[in-house]
Amino acid sequence: MEAELIQWLKQRASKHERLSIGLGDDAAAITWPTPGRESVVTTDLLTEGVDFLMGEVDPRRIGRKALAVNLSDIAAMGAEPLAAFVSLALPSRGALELAQQLYEGMFPLAEQFNVSIAGGDTNTWDGRLVISVTLIGEVDARQVWRRDRAMAGDWILVTGDFGGSRLAKQFDFTPRLAVAKRLRPSGQVRAAIDVSDGLSLDLSRLAAASGCGARIDLDAIPISADARRMSQLDPDGPDPLTRALSDGEDFELILAVPPDEAARLLETQPLDAPLTHIGELIARPGLFTTDGRELTPRGFLHG
Amino acid sequence: MEAELIQWLKQRASKHERLSIGLGDDAAAITWPTPGRESVVTTDLLTEGVDFLMGEVDPRRIGRKALAVNLSDIAAMGAEPLAAFVSLALPSRGALELAQQLYEGMFPLAEQFNVSIAGGDTNTWDGRLVISVTLIGEVDARQVWRRDRAMAGDWILVTGDFGGSRLAKQFDFTPRLAVAKRLRPSGQVRAAIDVSDGLSLDLSRLAAASGCGARIDLDAIPISADARRMSQLDPDGPDPLTRALSDGEDFELILAVPPDEAARLLETQPLDAPLTHIGELIARPGLFTTDGRELTPRGFLHG
Repeated sequence: MEAELIQWLKQRASKHERLSIGLGDDAAAITWPTPGRESVVTTDLLTEGVDFLMGEVDPRRIGRKALAVNLSDIAAMGAEPLAAFVSLALPSRGALELAQQLYEGMFPLAEQFNVSIAGGDTNTWDGRLVISVTLIGEVDARQVWRRDRAMAGDWILVTGDFGGSRLAKQFDFTPRLAVAKRLRPSGQVRAAIDVSDGLSLDLSRLAAASGCGARIDLDAIPISADARRMSQLDPDGPDPLTRALSDGEDFELILAVPPDEAARLLETQPLDAPLTHIGELIARPGLFTTDGRELTPRGFLHG
Repeated sequence: MEAELIQWLKQRASKHERLSIGLGDDAAAITWPTPGRESVVTTDLLTEGVDFLMGEVDPRRIGRKALAVNLSDIAAMGAEPLAAFVSLALPSRGALELAQQLYEGMFPLAEQFNVSIAGGDTNTWDGRLVISVTLIGEVDARQVWRRDRAMAGDWILVTGDFGGSRLAKQFDFTPRLAVAKRLRPSGQVRAAIDVSDGLSLDLSRLAAASGCGARIDLDAIPISADARRMSQLDPDGPDPLTRALSDGEDFELILAVPPDEAARLLETQPLDAPLTHIGELIARPGLFTTDGRELTPRGFLHG
């Protein structure tokens, strides 16, 4: 089955110009012709029952998500993607068809962002579906966006809006690679993280990694229509703001940018996603509202 | 749990000098200071019930194997390893302890071959254990060992011996990185593959990828003591030669080397593993014995 799948993939998948060895050898190879480049590597594993429910979600959307979550991490490094490696543990019944559907969900994203499917490992077993994707990207060493370089005084900007991703966005989001591409050359983004587990939780991680705290203006948080919709559907559940702060899987970017540059970006809004100013990094550790109340970071904690 | 595991890993895992960003950011980063280098990337996923049985095998040996099979692929490219990315789907009960045992099995190998555990993704679920490791190595672009560059007339050399890996070697083998390191500078290895699925099957893959066939001298095949032992334990099962040709998981290297250089290597035996001449690449497609009989490649086919 794996040999058949590799043949099929070779016909379908495009090959990045930097990929000197693609599918079908013991390993893939990527050339690094220019000194000073860094390869950026991220990996995410999705499991049936936790990250998706078979039968409720088209396998193409599952495959798309498995690639997209990794693309979001590459965007959060300010990098651009090169090559993806896809490992599957497939339920043996209908394994080839399922594998092809998963890949069919990846192909449009791979095309859009010029990523090659460059390798992987295909297995069948009597367990449920597991998808592990590793993505390699690249960036100039001086331009990489770490999460631990923010400074007190930096403004906190976010792309897009937050909350309610369970209704659709967790599968259909656009990884913010265009944002990374547009802002990278300026060298003005001091730190970045993508919101996978929850806006307040991921912001607190960026702040803590940078040895800072953060003050956020709750009135400024961009709340998604789906966060409001979910709160209407479930009036006893969290309110829309709480959802925006903690639902997770928004896959938007949090950026720490010095005030002058941040103000310029907010005025010109040069991105395909709206940028919103939601607060500032501060010297005092912790997460606070503008009126000084301490917020407990909330979100999805793995395992 | 994941945050706790990352803290523990940061204390335990050494950081490769080329790893500019290690554990704990959205992605890891590796620097490529010298032009003309290639990154070599391989990935393998192991599942409980197929690749190992919990309860029968110490989790440390499972972790070791998950890293070692990838190291073997890096060796088969003539490359040296740099950084490993480990994704886990852990049964929720005792997940942290199991994860630590898996990593403890990896650490000695990682130390030995100077590999950093540079990232990963840790998940719990109500399914069985899945381990996916992606390994990044590097090699000079002119020295990479592909599997499709063998030529008719090249001698087929193998390291070590074959068969019966199920008794121990499938978990305890040494990835042939020292062989890669020793032979790489000569530029005389034309093609290589590692034996994961079976000597005859993997040899036929190397030959076919190179547009060749192969003729092998069955009397020359180095048969392991464990292949003989397994045949003694199971007299109705395959004979030792058949085991050597088809058992798989030997994780030895098959090398295609021009005759002059091959003869020199066989005489000097410069490696820490014995090198054996088992045949030649030939123009005619297929796998043949020295007396002209066609052999059907056999081994383990995934899925």
